[in-house]
Amino acid sequence: MSIKPGPIRLRVTDLHESVDDPALTSMTLLNELAGRYPDAVSFSAGRPFEGFYDVEDLSRHLMTFKSYLEDEKGLPAEQVRRTFFQYGRTKGFIHELIARQLEVDEGLIVDPESIVVTTGCQEAMVLLLRALVRDARDVILAATPNYVGFIGAARVAGAPLRSVREHEGGIDLEDLERQIAAARREGLRPRACYVVPDFANPSGASMSLVDRIALLELAEREQILVIEDNPYTLFRAGGPQLPMLKTLDEQHQVIHLGSFAKSAFAGARVGYVIADQPVTPDGASGAGPLLLADHLAKLKSMVTLNTSSVAQAVIGGYLLENGCSLKRATAREAAVYRQNLATVLDSLKSVFGTLPGLSQDVSWNTPQGGMFVVVTLPFTADDAMLEYSASKFGVLWTPMHHFYEGTAGFRQARLSFSVLTPEQITLGVGRLGALVQDQRARHLVGVAHS
Amino acid sequence: MSIKPGPIRLRVTDLHESVDDPALTSMTLLNELAGRYPDAVSFSAGRPFEGFYDVEDLSRHLMTFKSYLEDEKGLPAEQVRRTFFQYGRTKGFIHELIARQLEVDEGLIVDPESIVVTTGCQEAMVLLLRALVRDARDVILAATPNYVGFIGAARVAGAPLRSVREHEGGIDLEDLERQIAAARREGLRPRACYVVPDFANPSGASMSLVDRIALLELAEREQILVIEDNPYTLFRAGGPQLPMLKTLDEQHQVIHLGSFAKSAFAGARVGYVIADQPVTPDGASGAGPLLLADHLAKLKSMVTLNTSSVAQAVIGGYLLENGCSLKRATAREAAVYRQNLATVLDSLKSVFGTLPGLSQDVSWNTPQGGMFVVVTLPFTADDAMLEYSASKFGVLWTPMHHFYEGTAGFRQARLSFSVLTPEQITLGVGRLGALVQDQRARHLVGVAHS
Repeated sequence: MSIKPGPIRLRVTDLHESVDDPALTSMTLLNELAGRYPDAVSFSAGRPFEGFYDVEDLSRHLMTFKSYLEDEKGLPAEQVRRTFFQYGRTKGFIHELIARQLEVDEGLIVDPESIVVTTGCQEAMVLLLRALVRDARDVILAATPNYVGFIGAARVAGAPLRSVREHEGGIDLEDLERQIAAARREGLRPRACYVVPDFANPSGASMSLVDRIALLELAEREQILVIEDNPYTLFRAGGPQLPMLKTLDEQHQVIHLGSFAKSAFAGARVGYVIADQPVTPDGASGAGPLLLADHLAKLKSMVTLNTSSVAQAVIGGYLLENGCSLKRATAREAAVYRQNLATVLDSLKSVFGTLPGLSQDVSWNTPQGGMFVVVTLPFTADDAMLEYSASKFGVLWTPMHHFYEGTAGFRQARLSFSVLTPEQITLGVGRLGALVQDQRARHLVGVAHS
Repeated sequence: MSIKPGPIRLRVTDLHESVDDPALTSMTLLNELAGRYPDAVSFSAGRPFEGFYDVEDLSRHLMTFKSYLEDEKGLPAEQVRRTFFQYGRTKGFIHELIARQLEVDEGLIVDPESIVVTTGCQEAMVLLLRALVRDARDVILAATPNYVGFIGAARVAGAPLRSVREHEGGIDLEDLERQIAAARREGLRPRACYVVPDFANPSGASMSLVDRIALLELAEREQILVIEDNPYTLFRAGGPQLPMLKTLDEQHQVIHLGSFAKSAFAGARVGYVIADQPVTPDGASGAGPLLLADHLAKLKSMVTLNTSSVAQAVIGGYLLENGCSLKRATAREAAVYRQNLATVLDSLKSVFGTLPGLSQDVSWNTPQGGMFVVVTLPFTADDAMLEYSASKFGVLWTPMHHFYEGTAGFRQARLSFSVLTPEQITLGVGRLGALVQDQRARHLVGVAHS
């Protein structure tokens, strides 16, 4: 008692293990390298194009939304003020505008009551994964390479993930069926499968219409839910628009995740989830059935209470000013991404398709839209090689193996082109070519990279 | 295969158990009753006074913050735009203004790097509880009756809570010591204790300076963290201002939770956590020590990525326009709460202090500030009685036993007076008097309430 025990000793090993997850800490290295090599061309930033942002727009969006509440919704002044300033409806207050957007852009009719507006799509993933994992038997399937945000949500929600193979046409349905069977043999309960049907992050892969229908049939047969996340569908560069899974969903098997990060702006942190699945109540409670959305809202009331009112109002105003069409709202950005995608593919062809001895060991996919191209290299593309690439050749990219949780993708790099100019892209792909030549030369004379 | 399996069947018993937590579903009943009896005087709404809100202020706050970025921070136009629109720093970008406010109002000096700006204080609780519970041995202590938001955060984060008794002077330190010892005997690891030192929600209790110091000594002796949540400290109606626990904290034992819900506005969903505790890294990793704040930020990157940029900018502008003093910013609201508290106490005295035969069985506490008074009634004050009170007498209040997780408080009601006028308060307390007279009459003739 006379000895002062001193300050409390906290060790990282006393904290929840998700604080040290390798998939997520690797993203820290990327940011750190971007800061350390500011002149490097960065193909690693996944953020949207920012050339059309104007701070003055925010106030106008707020006023547009205020007029909507007054004129279209007919709310008295006191209620309008309350919408902007007070604790609000847990499921949010722009759900009707979101439903309108889905009808305008996708021909999808959803009950606004089945929508929960969330603090970005990230919170929607956390709520959903928390809801679906009741006990240690529950497991979530996901096409792999997987979106790093979904991996993170699973870690923090304590949801075990099981990988399903992906090919150029998106999720491998045969492997999905195999993984479901294997999980059941182990006494596990596969609850849902996560997919990004259009221009997936990180692979750029897209599902055919035939596979979309087959996935829904498989899900019905196996009695699992499908979690659809489709933020890049707005940025198609070629080929016909395909219906979203939710548009094809006749049996309420699809839970659809939505985001305004790639359309309006990422900083708003406004996303949503459509969860129109009826949930049978506990027999003892005497309560009526609720939608899965209502249960997710209960979890949301414990995580963030409600989505920021100002953020919702800004997004609401943005939707209203664009006739509730995100396609119309993002036409300029879509043109930028289309041009950038073409420039990446052209540059890759001109750098690697013409240099003798390189074409056969460098390959890449050709997505029809989105923000990502994946390049397969003739050497290991890990964090050490990334640092070498940044310091010696001034080009940054994202090692793909992080998205495979370290099981594959060791020779692949994701090239993200959303914030670059065509000139930067040409320059960057040229630098990537120099890195490949350097590695080939070292390999030929038997010297490993330092 | 030929039989269509039909839509997926989801049962509530297949979802995470926190979706059906009784403490939280009881709050749904309160909202539902308020909707069903719109003419009832509601002492149950815990939301802040809304008489001074003006939607036009929001645009001004945004522009004030923009000028701060340009003029004080000297950011180029491109970086200003990026701050408003892009994915941002996980720990937030108004941390320096928050640190300035704490110095101006509380004389507290904190490193801005130890602050994580969160999606309301609710997210801060979730991140913290998730971080502190590594395995099944970890347990969190909390003064009881407990804030319902903290109970919710613990449920969704999977953090086991252990109740510590509270008296008029806040947490019972002897019981805290007993509970720590008891937990250790059971092989558990008490990690932290949650307290609201000023005008707690729901009890209105406040800790003395002596007890604040004793709590920090106890925490140091027992090597536990103290989680301080102090949203009502701005609304003192009498007595001297006491230092916050974080102001007295010399050993980094206090994790301080902050909120702008009761000062700026609740809809913004902006709060923060100060976590300046150094965390020793895993020996194998080779990394340097981080602050607990940095680990919480890693969890935040998996829950909401970052706090809404527009929401942060609005709060930043509000702080700047008020010289970073919340005391100055909330002077008008504080006067309203002071008058309302006096009116509640006067009304209780005039209704229950003068009616013969009532004074001895109705009692109440006399908080020196905040938004809540607790009344002890001569009958069970549960959800059934609340419904009877609403339908027959037109007055709503909050059953206290929900905040004790059903272990105590069965005859207590929380009266929240933040959104009422003095006239509504007088009317409402009169109606409560009529309910008490009704119950006494029924009790005398042996008839239970229906």
